[in-house]
Amino acid sequence: MPVRTLAGDLPTAPPGSVVRLQGWVHRRRELATVTFLVLRDRTGLAQVVVRSGVSRQVPPEETTVEVTGTVTANPQAPGGVEITEPAVTPLTDAAETPPVELWRPALTAALPTLLDHAAVAWRHPAQKARWEVAAASLRGFRATLDATGFTEVCTPKLVGTATESGANVFAVDYFGRPAYLAQSPQLYKQQMVGVFERVYEVGPVFRAELHDTVRHLAEYRSLDVELGFVRDHRDVLAVLRDVLAGMTDAVRGSGAAERLGLEVPEVPAAFPVIHFADALALVGAPADEPDLAPEHERALGEWAMAEHGSDFVAVEGYPMAKRPFYTHPETGSAPGGARWSNSFDLLFRGLELVTGGQRLHRYADYVAAIEARGEDPATYASYLAAFRHGMPPHGGFAIGLERWVARLVGAANLREVTPFPRDLHRLAP
Amino acid sequence: MPVRTLAGDLPTAPPGSVVRLQGWVHRRRELATVTFLVLRDRTGLAQVVVRSGVSRQVPPEETTVEVTGTVTANPQAPGGVEITEPAVTPLTDAAETPPVELWRPALTAALPTLLDHAAVAWRHPAQKARWEVAAASLRGFRATLDATGFTEVCTPKLVGTATESGANVFAVDYFGRPAYLAQSPQLYKQQMVGVFERVYEVGPVFRAELHDTVRHLAEYRSLDVELGFVRDHRDVLAVLRDVLAGMTDAVRGSGAAERLGLEVPEVPAAFPVIHFADALALVGAPADEPDLAPEHERALGEWAMAEHGSDFVAVEGYPMAKRPFYTHPETGSAPGGARWSNSFDLLFRGLELVTGGQRLHRYADYVAAIEARGEDPATYASYLAAFRHGMPPHGGFAIGLERWVARLVGAANLREVTPFPRDLHRLAP
Repeated sequence: MPVRTLAGDLPTAPPGSVVRLQGWVHRRRELATVTFLVLRDRTGLAQVVVRSGVSRQVPPEETTVEVTGTVTANPQAPGGVEITEPAVTPLTDAAETPPVELWRPALTAALPTLLDHAAVAWRHPAQKARWEVAAASLRGFRATLDATGFTEVCTPKLVGTATESGANVFAVDYFGRPAYLAQSPQLYKQQMVGVFERVYEVGPVFRAELHDTVRHLAEYRSLDVELGFVRDHRDVLAVLRDVLAGMTDAVRGSGAAERLGLEVPEVPAAFPVIHFADALALVGAPADEPDLAPEHERALGEWAMAEHGSDFVAVEGYPMAKRPFYTHPETGSAPGGARWSNSFDLLFRGLELVTGGQRLHRYADYVAAIEARGEDPATYASYLAAFRHGMPPHGGFAIGLERWVARLVGAANLREVTPFPRDLHRLAP
Repeated sequence: MPVRTLAGDLPTAPPGSVVRLQGWVHRRRELATVTFLVLRDRTGLAQVVVRSGVSRQVPPEETTVEVTGTVTANPQAPGGVEITEPAVTPLTDAAETPPVELWRPALTAALPTLLDHAAVAWRHPAQKARWEVAAASLRGFRATLDATGFTEVCTPKLVGTATESGANVFAVDYFGRPAYLAQSPQLYKQQMVGVFERVYEVGPVFRAELHDTVRHLAEYRSLDVELGFVRDHRDVLAVLRDVLAGMTDAVRGSGAAERLGLEVPEVPAAFPVIHFADALALVGAPADEPDLAPEHERALGEWAMAEHGSDFVAVEGYPMAKRPFYTHPETGSAPGGARWSNSFDLLFRGLELVTGGQRLHRYADYVAAIEARGEDPATYASYLAAFRHGMPPHGGFAIGLERWVARLVGAANLREVTPFPRDLHRLAP
């Protein structure tokens, strides 16, 4: 019995040779004298021609089958090759009719239907390609960091205190005691900078989001980076630039981008950077606005494209008042009263994609920052131990995987690119 | 100002050149006329010689510093090179004395002390190297699978039903409704086989383990693999073999193995395999034993080494009664009454390391298996939908990262190789 041939390798198989394929019946089309069976495997589609004279019994769509047959050139077939004189053997019972039509070029069912039937709907080649963009992004993210001295870390998702932001945490019954699901690996990745200097983590983060919007999920994948011995947030931004270049390269090389017809953005050699105060002025917002509204982000995206030919623009200097306690004030600020920070948001095509910046690194600064927010530094004792015992100037960022993929493929709703989304209403499948 | 030089690159720096180093004061040793400063960065240690005549002020250990000085050959120094005529600039306030002595060759503090002070204790080069073994293992795992047609997936950790085993799940308050933390990605990775054929995931899994032992954690990292179109569990075992070969290669290439003096095992071209019934006979256990006791596993490990020169041995055919409902019975079993399964445990040096096997793939078999355990198939409706709509014969396995690393570095307790372990008693740091 010949070894398995993948659909994607068929165009290079010698015509006349006998091959063995395995996959799903993607489409079965019975004509008067011939049945076309389109077989789907992980690499693509293959056309199988079942003529009269041999058994025309082709199992229903989505049944898994093995097909042994002859490689035959046919310029009309996908890849210029089809399988003739096949023997079709089912690998399991006949499949029931799928809840969504997977053989049509586009998935046209409504989002709730797709989500309810995720295990089947994700088999559609266009939907599958969206996750391939995600998987390629993960590969590019790690490859860039592995090549530049970063160490992957794994930090706990069960935590004892609802720190960092306090709100929106999920409570867990931890052997009868309260625990919480980590909203981010922030406090742990910083501690690991003390060990490895440069760390990254890909993992789930949990937000008990009461916002029922297209851009919020209760569980998502965070691509976290943190690095020591930086001068300021601009060094962090340079790493972010390289990471996004690695991610876009991997997406471009994956094949999924082509199949989806994506315009994968060019990552410039350096991101255009604008200060928050200048950004407000540029978009005509009042100088005392504490944040950028969606229309401001859109206008900045248009400005970046018009002025710099860039899909990306970094806004630096966000007001300290809107940033977490560990945020480093703007270099040169008066002690204790900084208005601006050494932090940034990166906008991609006019939408916020990444938040990052420099963090505090002196123990005394942490104590002051935590007390200034009316909290007790003792709550953070084990985290602060890292700073009492020597930490370098450092900073980092976090990229939301689903948000990145949604922007890249032009999906309006994060749920369209998340295999099993979790939100206020949805905990299944 | 010269760009930063890493300690590991010093041996190749031209003698007489001026370099800039950054790192931690690993050790400060004040002699009568000279102070030795050993600087630690992510790549290793560098010796800095501070002589009388220049400032002898060296900050205390663990303070982060920048050192600018001259590269000078000295056969007695680590790497044959030291830094002379240095300028030492602290990058932060003087560090407090660490709770464990990081400059000693070995960390001698008791485990609870190390765990309580994890952020600092992990800075010790020997401890840090243990995690580098973990990080290298992750790289090798992914590289092997990326090269053989696998797709990385991310499956939800918040789930709606306490399925699979029922016991030992953590309950979460999910917007006022009950939810649970996933004990494994098993049911989701199988569904994704229907989409991508071959999938893997690295992620946290959660077990509300009431066992307070050296080999149980409440949260650990599971390296999950699942693949379709297998003949039986032997195809799964062949992939596991390649994955472990990739992991050991990556560990060998990481440098950490050498620094720790590890004997990284040779992965044989194929694992020796013994049937569960034969294993019982070999170790002299009664033929009706449903499981292997630790002393049986040890004996099998010795047998594998003596007979096959292998650190690994696979035991196949585990009794169906001890395996989860989705387990495929042994090929050729009588319908409905199989005693043995197409599943395996892989033992590494006489300890169970990996569990895996072939899964059921027919919808009707799932319904029967679930009902036979007294459960209602409706509980599993969304999972079973994948099987109603066509799934291939498939199987997979899961490797516990911490367990793998502990075995490799010879740590008796998983907590020794887990940066922030979670168990019955420990939820911090």
